[in-house]
Amino acid sequence: MSKLVTRVRETIRDVPDFPKPGILFKDITPVLADARLFTDVVNWVAGTLAGERVDKIVGMESRGFIFGAAVAPQVHAGFVPARKPGKLPSAVESVSYDLEYGSATLQIHKDAIRPGDRVAIVDDLLATGGTAKATVDLVRRLGGEVIMTVYMVELSFLGGRKLVEAPVASLVIY
Amino acid sequence: MSKLVTRVRETIRDVPDFPKPGILFKDITPVLADARLFTDVVNWVAGTLAGERVDKIVGMESRGFIFGAAVAPQVHAGFVPARKPGKLPSAVESVSYDLEYGSATLQIHKDAIRPGDRVAIVDDLLATGGTAKATVDLVRRLGGEVIMTVYMVELSFLGGRKLVEAPVASLVIY
Repeated sequence: MSKLVTRVRETIRDVPDFPKPGILFKDITPVLADARLFTDVVNWVAGTLAGERVDKIVGMESRGFIFGAAVAPQVHAGFVPARKPGKLPSAVESVSYDLEYGSATLQIHKDAIRPGDRVAIVDDLLATGGTAKATVDLVRRLGGEVIMTVYMVELSFLGGRKLVEAPVASLVIY
Repeated sequence: MSKLVTRVRETIRDVPDFPKPGILFKDITPVLADARLFTDVVNWVAGTLAGERVDKIVGMESRGFIFGAAVAPQVHAGFVPARKPGKLPSAVESVSYDLEYGSATLQIHKDAIRPGDRVAIVDDLLATGGTAKATVDLVRRLGGEVIMTVYMVELSFLGGRKLVEAPVASLVIY
């Protein structure tokens, strides 16, 4: 296991019973607060895209904004937020997807992705893959090519990787 | 006026009647989507902190995450998210503040700021200043020193600068 993987694993904080009883929440905020570690993780994300032309980084509200926006300037890409309904003011493309209980909707501004744009999707966590797959669908509907989806943490026992239907890179895999 | 200010002003999109009738919304997402412009704005934010030791960048949910997280590695600082209630899993410091209608609450993890930390607060927009002042209060309660608050856009006619009670740097002032 690489040193970076070990450092991230040791820094993530396990919070029992959050957001509800029986869930062991992986709190990544201590990774962000550690300047060297956060920088190293951002560099690792950029490294997964090395040698690629990347036009846009898409990050999902809210924690995906953190890694996505940090990596965009490094790979000379623009940043596109994928947001919950009612947040983006101009014309949007929307996709709804099922959650464990109920459903959710994600939106991207229609003019934020141009046909032929090479797009990387970045989030802190790949869990069931519902949010990631929805974002892949949004980018493709707007004519973008999803060259990679990148996560700091993957909960592989939830099977999200299969659902995404796009390349997956993750740093720490549980 | 600097070239950067002009480019940002020309790229921000005015959206009338969002989120409600009579409001002219300043949509900053076209700035983010433009790789060179986003990078130049992030570099400008970093420049407002040049020569300073910065331990933590605090960004406010959600758009403050975008600029805050992008600038943190550049100034060798950790990133600390200030979030709405119920999002941060560990022990939090909370502050509530008044909005035009009703009130809002903002939280930071108690262990995210250490006494003596030199902190810069970064957000996309300084409007009435309520959110910015709440964030300044949170940082100070945890023993941090607010060395600067930085905004891409300031709506100066709303008077937020006076409320903040900390140094203010803003790139585009309306």
